[in-house]
Order: sequence, then structure tokens, then C-alpha cells
Amino acid sequence: MVIATTARAVRKLSGGWRRKGFTVGFVPTMGALHAGHLALVAASKVRHDRTVVSIFVNPMQFGPRDDLARYPRPSARDRRLLERAGVDALYRPSPAAMYPQGFDTAVEVGPRLTGGLCGRYRPGHFRGVTTVVAKLLNAVRPDEAFFGRKDAQQAVVIRRMALDLDTGVRITVVPTVRERDGLAMSSRNAYLSPAERRSAPVIRRALIAGRKVALSGRKGAGTGAVKAAVRRVLAREPAVRVQYLELVDADTLTPLAYPKGKVLLAVAAHLGRTRLLDNVVFTARRGR
Amino acid sequence: MVIATTARAVRKLSGGWRRKGFTVGFVPTMGALHAGHLALVAASKVRHDRTVVSIFVNPMQFGPRDDLARYPRPSARDRRLLERAGVDALYRPSPAAMYPQGFDTAVEVGPRLTGGLCGRYRPGHFRGVTTVVAKLLNAVRPDEAFFGRKDAQQAVVIRRMALDLDTGVRITVVPTVRERDGLAMSSRNAYLSPAERRSAPVIRRALIAGRKVALSGRKGAGTGAVKAAVRRVLAREPAVRVQYLELVDADTLTPLAYPKGKVLLAVAAHLGRTRLLDNVVFTARRGR
Repeated sequence: MVIATTARAVRKLSGGWRRKGFTVGFVPTMGALHAGHLALVAASKVRHDRTVVSIFVNPMQFGPRDDLARYPRPSARDRRLLERAGVDALYRPSPAAMYPQGFDTAVEVGPRLTGGLCGRYRPGHFRGVTTVVAKLLNAVRPDEAFFGRKDAQQAVVIRRMALDLDTGVRITVVPTVRERDGLAMSSRNAYLSPAERRSAPVIRRALIAGRKVALSGRKGAGTGAVKAAVRRVLAREPAVRVQYLELVDADTLTPLAYPKGKVLLAVAAHLGRTRLLDNVVFTARRGR
Repeated sequence: MVIATTARAVRKLSGGWRRKGFTVGFVPTMGALHAGHLALVAASKVRHDRTVVSIFVNPMQFGPRDDLARYPRPSARDRRLLERAGVDALYRPSPAAMYPQGFDTAVEVGPRLTGGLCGRYRPGHFRGVTTVVAKLLNAVRPDEAFFGRKDAQQAVVIRRMALDLDTGVRITVVPTVRERDGLAMSSRNAYLSPAERRSAPVIRRALIAGRKVALSGRKGAGTGAVKAAVRRVLAREPAVRVQYLELVDADTLTPLAYPKGKVLLAVAAHLGRTRLLDNVVFTARRGR
């Protein structure tokens, strides 16, 4: 596995592959890798001749009260995992290489997609995400980039950006990988105390209960009833404090009064100081 | 000359050239081509195996009171000029291809570079410029892109964006081409009435007078004295109404109290309804 620390180096590498006729898949990460990341790598390796992974804990997407300083950075372990997974190149720029003195550009998707859900509680977050991903796509110039479904809004926002800026990069969303008890894999799960960890799987169970109501076709099973079902299950674990619970169109992120079409039922919740995301995406066909 | 109307088509073309080991130069324009544009093409052809020119009158960089509707679009003539100049490909997207339904992304350089000079009078203009140029660079993926010195702030802003977003594209600024009487070539010169056209060269003469004072090394030849010299000459043509007259650092665009280092002395002026830009860039060594 080649390690590149500058945009120039990784562009050269990827350009050389493309000249040989190879396709390039790309998995951007913040490191602290888990099975979810490795599923993205596997999806890339199935489809592409070469796979590049980036590890960069992006300061621009963290708010002043977020967990930038304590975000885990187990770099030796990450490197071993990627080598074992057969990754061809690791792009690991420093913050100073990414944001040198004088850096003053931002890539931003409008509030229709970035104003709700996480964007409502993390101002500037998606601006940081789209800026760094635009930079990563420009440096790596892959044919396809892979993102996890757990961060559903992020995937929608990045797909918009990649399309709008004519990057030519296909954005693919890979299903969430879960622990055996249903908890969505996340680098932030490491923050949970043993008691919090035991409470956390209720989020998944609650979302499934919500989906069941949405798909029941029962008269009156509108968004209110779906959310009530989710909250009823979540109430069993009082340690879980809901930040938002939304039922939106999965592509446009527009709030829906009734589950209809491709639906995203998404939750953000705090367990102690740890913020967890999860969601279910499903298709609701209902005649009213 | 191949004509491409979509990002996909031009990317494929340029990718094919790169796979053959060719370098690609790129000249983005809004059409209504003149000798200034052809100098950019010539600069590209000297250095690169293939040259792509784009023609796109970018609605996003025009304000509501700007001249978008009446901007000249002599497309058959432009095409002939480019063919004669030996351009390899013309990228000519439609507004609908550039900004399809749902488009919602912007690329923006911060106010340090975009807040002064033209940016002060054309809010949103540079946001439109950097967004469309980012898209063009992503579509064409050139090794180098060429811009005219007349639009000095634009070149500084685009260089910042191209660097910050890791495009890997070298941004080169080519000296302004002028009419025999000194008027900077511009597609907007076509708007001038015969009387306005006769007045217009005063702008160039005024800037040269300002530069002379700046380089005189005279005690007290600060920015005030330089601007006074410019205005004295401009006053000979009362039809020329100055919008701004600034003396700034040519790289950072920071206003200077004294001409020092690489200096940009820039003017924007109206002649009737037509807005003209011009500038001189020079190096001032002064000990105070």
C-alpha cells in the first residue's frame, strides 16, 4: 500500500493508474476504521482495479463545541486494517497540507439539502464536508466514491455537490453495517460507557418500530404516528436524548406529512456526551 | 475542431488525450472573442499539445442589473476564429446543461480577495465566477488554464480557488492586449458609441500617469498622489465616470498606503451604460 500525504502525490498515483486503463474507486474516511468503512472498501474493490482510501479528520466540519480534539486517531491500526483489506493507496494529508496559510475557499450546497436534519444543529458542518470532499475528489480523481448510509444527509449533499460541480465522480451509498445487537457502526461508539453502550441499540429498534407503522398502511399512519411509535420505543431508555427525529423524502430531504415514496426516517440522539445517528430508508406505497 | 456541449463529452475528450500522454491547455471565455482571447489561445498552444476553449455566458456571474441579456453572442464568428487559431476543442454548454434543475452548489472565495475592487460593486459576481470555473476545470481537467490580466482581481480569485480546491491546474495570467490607441480589448467595447470609443483610451493614459508618479520615488508620492495623477488625466474626458480607483498589493489585493512591492493600480469606469476595466501592474521599490 502506497502512502501519499499531498494532493500532488495522490493525483500522480491515480493519474498513472488511469493512463494504464485502470478504474479507481475511492473511500474518504476520518479514520478510526470499523467494519462499516471496510464494507465501503469491499464495495470499491469489487468494482474497481484500484482503491484509494483517505484518512483525514477534517477540522472544517467540526463546530467549536464538537469532538475534534478527542476524535480517535488510531493511525497504526487503521493502516494495518487497510493493508489487510487490500487497499492500493492511503491518502493521509496533514491539516496544514489541506488548509495551508491563506486558504480561503468554500464549497457549499444550499439550505434545501443542508438546512434541516443534522444541518440545523451543526451550522457550517456540511460546508466543511463539501469543501473537503471536493478537494479529495479533485486530488484523487476517482471514477466512483463510496459513502455509508448511516450518514444519509451527508450522502445526499455530497451527491448534489459532485453532480453540480461536474466532478464526473459517481457517488455510491453503501448500506449501514451494524453490531450484532443492531447498533450502527460508528467511530464515535468508542466514546460510550458500558451502560450507554447497552442502551444504544434501542435506536435501531425504535426506527424499525417506526418503519412498521409507516408500512402498515393503517389509516392515520401519518408522520405523527410514525414518530410517536419511534419515541415510544426510545422512551424505554431514558439515557437516550433525541436531538431530532424526522421523516423526509430520501432524495430531496423534504419533510413529509405522510410516508410516501422513498422515505428516510432519521434520528440523531445523545447518549451522555456522545451523539449518534441512525436511520432507515424504505419505500412506502400508500393510497390515501 | 471538436465541439462538445456536455461536461461528460469534454472530459472524455481530454481524458483520451491525457492517456496518450498529451498535455492540455484551457482558455475559458464568454465568447465575443477578440485579440485578447486569441493571445490566451496562443499562450496555451505554445505550451500544450492540445488546447480547449470554452464559451459560456455565465448567468451566475451577472447581477440583476447587469448586461446578461445584451451580452454579444456572435457564435459562428467565434467558432471560425477558434478554428483558424488551431484550437482542438470547443466546449460550449447550454445554460440548462450547466445549471440543470435542482442545481444548488456554490464555490466561494472569502471576502479578503472578493470583497474589494469589483466585488464591492458586483455582489455575488465572483461567487458566480468561481463556481463556473470550478465546474469548467472539473470538466476539462487541463494542466493549465489561461486568464487575461485586464480582469486582474478575477485572476487572483481564480488562482486562490484552483489552489485551495486541489484542482492541480496551473493558473497563468497573460498580459492585456490593447487597441492601437491603448484601450484594453474587451467584448464590452462593442457597446461604446463612436464618441465614447474616442474617450475610452484616456483610461490607459491615466493609469500610465499614475504609474509614473508611483515610480518617481518623489517624497510624498503615496497612494493619494498616485490616484490624484490618475484622476487629473481622467478629468480630460468628463464622459468617463470612475466607479473605483484603487492601488493594492497585486497578490493579496490589500489596499496600500504607498506603492510598494508588486502593485496593482486598477480602475473601473462607466462610459454611458458601458463598464470598462483596466489596470497596470508594476513593481515599486521605495525606501521611506
